[in-house]
Amino acid sequence: MTARNNVHVTVLGLGAMGTALAAAVIGAEHPTTVWNRSPGKADGLVAQGATAAATARDAILNSQVVIACLLDDASVHEVLDPLTDELAGRVLINVTTTTPAQARESAAWAERAGIAYLDGGIMAVPHMIGRPESSILYSGSAEVFHEYKPLLDLWGTSTYFGEDAGLASLYDLALLSGMYVMFAGFLHGAAMVAPAGITATEFAAAAAPWLTAMTGGFHGFAEVVDGGDYTVAGQQSLEFSDLTDIVTASADQGISTEVIDVVQRLIQRQIDAGHGKEGFARIFESIRHPA
Amino acid sequence: MTARNNVHVTVLGLGAMGTALAAAVIGAEHPTTVWNRSPGKADGLVAQGATAAATARDAILNSQVVIACLLDDASVHEVLDPLTDELAGRVLINVTTTTPAQARESAAWAERAGIAYLDGGIMAVPHMIGRPESSILYSGSAEVFHEYKPLLDLWGTSTYFGEDAGLASLYDLALLSGMYVMFAGFLHGAAMVAPAGITATEFAAAAAPWLTAMTGGFHGFAEVVDGGDYTVAGQQSLEFSDLTDIVTASADQGISTEVIDVVQRLIQRQIDAGHGKEGFARIFESIRHPA
Repeated sequence: MTARNNVHVTVLGLGAMGTALAAAVIGAEHPTTVWNRSPGKADGLVAQGATAAATARDAILNSQVVIACLLDDASVHEVLDPLTDELAGRVLINVTTTTPAQARESAAWAERAGIAYLDGGIMAVPHMIGRPESSILYSGSAEVFHEYKPLLDLWGTSTYFGEDAGLASLYDLALLSGMYVMFAGFLHGAAMVAPAGITATEFAAAAAPWLTAMTGGFHGFAEVVDGGDYTVAGQQSLEFSDLTDIVTASADQGISTEVIDVVQRLIQRQIDAGHGKEGFARIFESIRHPA
Repeated sequence: MTARNNVHVTVLGLGAMGTALAAAVIGAEHPTTVWNRSPGKADGLVAQGATAAATARDAILNSQVVIACLLDDASVHEVLDPLTDELAGRVLINVTTTTPAQARESAAWAERAGIAYLDGGIMAVPHMIGRPESSILYSGSAEVFHEYKPLLDLWGTSTYFGEDAGLASLYDLALLSGMYVMFAGFLHGAAMVAPAGITATEFAAAAAPWLTAMTGGFHGFAEVVDGGDYTVAGQQSLEFSDLTDIVTASADQGISTEVIDVVQRLIQRQIDAGHGKEGFARIFESIRHPA
């Protein structure tokens, strides 16, 4: 890995994540310029050695590589669309959370304007930045990814998915959907036991190792999904996976059943279609091909 | 731990789980009697040293301790209700999956009949039985739990929750709900990336470590829930947790949005009630107190 700390870097957006990204870049002795729409966010980074720019335009003009870590896609366009000329000939790495379609639109806009564009999705919370367990997904310009990989690696483990700029975002949102749904399932369980006087903390102590162990089942489900044959031996059937007991117990506890109802519906649609003896992984089909 | 392999044990129900439980008991040299409604399931266990009984009545009369591992609560009553007199004075350990209310009814029935009753919930798949990571939850008679703990420990780690026979089942179903919901979230993510040519196996390789890492968040959510103050600093707000990007990207991929819609609704109800600046853990309230 070549040291590239001669590369000037600008970070636009100094929320908790942008600040963490900038701090890692400053720590590697890149000349670093930072900008935030509302003032006062740059002070800590300036103390670490960054230059604070008064405008996004000034910030962009200071560097070859511009990192955008803004609130959302609308903020990206609001800040960058008026600065297309200034960005031309530079590298834009957009790690703002957007949809795949928005990432593709930004890539098309950048291409028209002569901006080298890489889109990123950050699978980490700010305090993880710079640690190997921080995973950042990229897609878009392969040239930018390979040229600036030493810079990207300052933030965590960098993975490149391909020239389609929407891929990193798609993967990012797919992993985040798994996370939010898992959190809802955990809190559903905590709500079930709460009326019995079991604290959420007690439940978490049991649920975290249990769900960790159960992630071991993903690979088996995935093999069945990829194989396309839900009748292979050794699977728990959809009929056996009937969730009536959980729905009933949840209702008996006086809590909302909606989190578990949705899974029961995915199962029931496959049973109704005549697949009750097939494996649980078949609920993939309920999701992939909506009614 | 006192060796108690002078205790005669009967196992009713020889599905994959009942067979695993019986094999562990036989392996510890307890005189073991097994029975299954449909014939042929006992052969392997007989080869290991078990006695196969022709009827559930004969099986019960052979042992002081009777383990019921049947299909569901209805099967338990169908098999055991006619044998109340035979069970009187014996110990019944019911590890059949039931609701808490069903477990309490069985405990009440057992008490009236003079049967010592312990209810169990198995947090393991059959091949895990006998390993420490197999967790089995119990509630009901404390005397039975403590007296027969060495027997129970043959199956994994035994935890006792209290005299209320419904508690083990409640905890069991709460943990299972977390599991099924997590599986649905994983398969939702796999369905999102599938149209981009990413296999479920590739997605599982990223999702399993990601979700394992994210179980680390449970304890923090639980502390907030137990503290009852969703405004404490350092949390991701409900507004920041808006899932519109995930819903939109899912719809753009042509898949069902129902799995992620339910989480978005839990968030939105709290935002609508004026709690948008408070922490994500507040969706617990959407579940605990349905509209």
